[in-house]
Amino acid sequence: MENFIYSIPTKVYFGRGKLQSLGEELTQCGSRGLLVYGGGSIRENGCYQEIVGQCEKHRIALWELSGVTVNPDVQMVEMGAELCKEHGIEFILAAGGGSVLDCGKMIAAAAKSEGTAWELVQYPERIEAVLPIVVVSTIAASGSEMDYTAVISNKSMRQKVACGCKLLLPRVAFLDPTYSMTVGMKATAEGIADIMSHLIEIYFSESRAFLQERLNEGAFRTCIDCGKTLLNAPDDYEARANLMWTACWAMNGFLRWGKPGNWTCHVFAHELGAMYPELSHGQILSVLLPRWLRIVVERGKTGQIVDWAKNVWDIREEKPLQSVEAAVAMLERYFQDLGLPGHLDIELTKQDMRELTRRIVPQVQNAYVALTVGDIERILKESIGKQSVRE
Amino acid sequence: MENFIYSIPTKVYFGRGKLQSLGEELTQCGSRGLLVYGGGSIRENGCYQEIVGQCEKHRIALWELSGVTVNPDVQMVEMGAELCKEHGIEFILAAGGGSVLDCGKMIAAAAKSEGTAWELVQYPERIEAVLPIVVVSTIAASGSEMDYTAVISNKSMRQKVACGCKLLLPRVAFLDPTYSMTVGMKATAEGIADIMSHLIEIYFSESRAFLQERLNEGAFRTCIDCGKTLLNAPDDYEARANLMWTACWAMNGFLRWGKPGNWTCHVFAHELGAMYPELSHGQILSVLLPRWLRIVVERGKTGQIVDWAKNVWDIREEKPLQSVEAAVAMLERYFQDLGLPGHLDIELTKQDMRELTRRIVPQVQNAYVALTVGDIERILKESIGKQSVRE
Repeated sequence: MENFIYSIPTKVYFGRGKLQSLGEELTQCGSRGLLVYGGGSIRENGCYQEIVGQCEKHRIALWELSGVTVNPDVQMVEMGAELCKEHGIEFILAAGGGSVLDCGKMIAAAAKSEGTAWELVQYPERIEAVLPIVVVSTIAASGSEMDYTAVISNKSMRQKVACGCKLLLPRVAFLDPTYSMTVGMKATAEGIADIMSHLIEIYFSESRAFLQERLNEGAFRTCIDCGKTLLNAPDDYEARANLMWTACWAMNGFLRWGKPGNWTCHVFAHELGAMYPELSHGQILSVLLPRWLRIVVERGKTGQIVDWAKNVWDIREEKPLQSVEAAVAMLERYFQDLGLPGHLDIELTKQDMRELTRRIVPQVQNAYVALTVGDIERILKESIGKQSVRE
Repeated sequence: MENFIYSIPTKVYFGRGKLQSLGEELTQCGSRGLLVYGGGSIRENGCYQEIVGQCEKHRIALWELSGVTVNPDVQMVEMGAELCKEHGIEFILAAGGGSVLDCGKMIAAAAKSEGTAWELVQYPERIEAVLPIVVVSTIAASGSEMDYTAVISNKSMRQKVACGCKLLLPRVAFLDPTYSMTVGMKATAEGIADIMSHLIEIYFSESRAFLQERLNEGAFRTCIDCGKTLLNAPDDYEARANLMWTACWAMNGFLRWGKPGNWTCHVFAHELGAMYPELSHGQILSVLLPRWLRIVVERGKTGQIVDWAKNVWDIREEKPLQSVEAAVAMLERYFQDLGLPGHLDIELTKQDMRELTRRIVPQVQNAYVALTVGDIERILKESIGKQSVRE
């Protein structure tokens, strides 16, 4: 286990009806807030109404920034920051999925800075102060609700960057699983793939830590189990609750600290997301993970996959190679069962391929398995389900 | 999963040499501290010297209260609180095992109160403020370093009480596994039994939570593995590190929140510890746990034990009863292998038995398995390895 510093001071209200404590917590942050949200799903599931009611009750003035999309753009962050400066906003309240939360977190930083938002995304060390951040998470996926990262896109530059800064950690997070019950199976499945990807990226690392690996396996098994349940019963509270809590712990650092490593699939996912912002992060990862694992196996790094096959998938083949192949096949089959498409439906030109490869190569040199240009091209081709790409 | 509020803002410095950041953290708390420690083991392992050096370097004045013993007495807390008031102490620095940390935590509360220390132990709601608490943990056991409980004894009254108050949570904890390498096998084994007891008490509860149960199993497997390693290699850094981190997470609330329950074995352990303060907490628990589990099995509550047998001990018997009996036997054998004695070497008179039973009965009525007077007497008799007790 490597040395580390653990610190996750986020206070989490978890469970049915917990949003009733929102007003009380917000008054600790100020009396003027900016509510950041997406396309309106929080109006459909009642979350918006509860937020507004809480704020009225506690005499909190609320400004609104809605319309945050998947792969939130830095322009949205700038708009939010301007609103904050103009109206003397004292805190950010972001309600929705990971994109909304990330956007809100970055607004909290940009509102307290003279520089541009994109500058802060690229140079997190320039973030010196942030507005207090309170979040209401409505989907189990990114774990942004208990994490100090914000992933922001710059669509005009075709870039997508993960900005990590301890100040971005939400002060308070509200997690009521009932608000995630209306999330459709497609987004639920993509969320599960996202959580699983965080667990896999952490698990497979040269740095070993017995405790963190056993806990990681337990979290992964929880994802498998919850996904199976939700396929047949999308409003199963226990499955929604377990998945929502797992999402936080897959990403908040706990399983990663003491066991550092490089995240290969997320490098691919961010670069693909930058170039194809219509693709969801979880979908991309569900396509990449089995393909990347197969390359890990090919390179002979089977030791950890044998543990993973045994403790996660209950596979105990006599020959290690059989175990690991069975485990990867089970993961692939699992994603299929969840209805995930198995490949990415994009037109990838040779020029795009060159650009993607150029961006990915330098980021995967110190990875668990170093990838060549050939490996990267192969993963990309397999991911779009084509042997060749057009000019 | 039941509703809960999660909040563990303790900052943890984990790993070799991390105590080098002590001075920097202490200066955030003030310039006058009280160092609380035990019998001097921190002088032998170099921890004391590092603490003093750090304080000198950062011009922090340090008063000392040494001699804290197993089952720390409330008189020691009073002494510490008086020292704090007399010298204008600004923070508590407790360095050692769980007893030292608990004593230091309670001093931090008593120093800010007009009432007696025992009053605060009995009525934690009267704790309104505490001095900042910084801890250096040197043994994997109680988890006090990341938990808001302090267990304090009142030897003159033969009482031992767990005082729970969120203000008692350490602000910063330093965990350097190398300081635990000099802990002998007896105390190491007792520590493992203590950690395992926390995990078992949490695991077996009417409230179910899939994630927490899977993580609990992973933490338990970590204990098993580390204990085996340390038997042959007491200075194995990885085993010491994993055990030390597991101790924190077995007790800090994370695995318990969402899955509340009553802790039967700790009721017995605290009452036995109150009457026989020479017994170590971990030793008592290693004796009680298998006996209690057998009663759980007898009462037909085998469902959770089957999961536990499978996921912790890798037992997959066809008949559930065979699985659970095998698992309990493996736990018992494991404690034997660690050198734990298997029964308590005390003279238990009939009068003591009556007194213990009188104290225990009201505390185990809402337990996972409600215990009768007969059950309690049986557990106690089995624990001392005798069929009858003398007058």
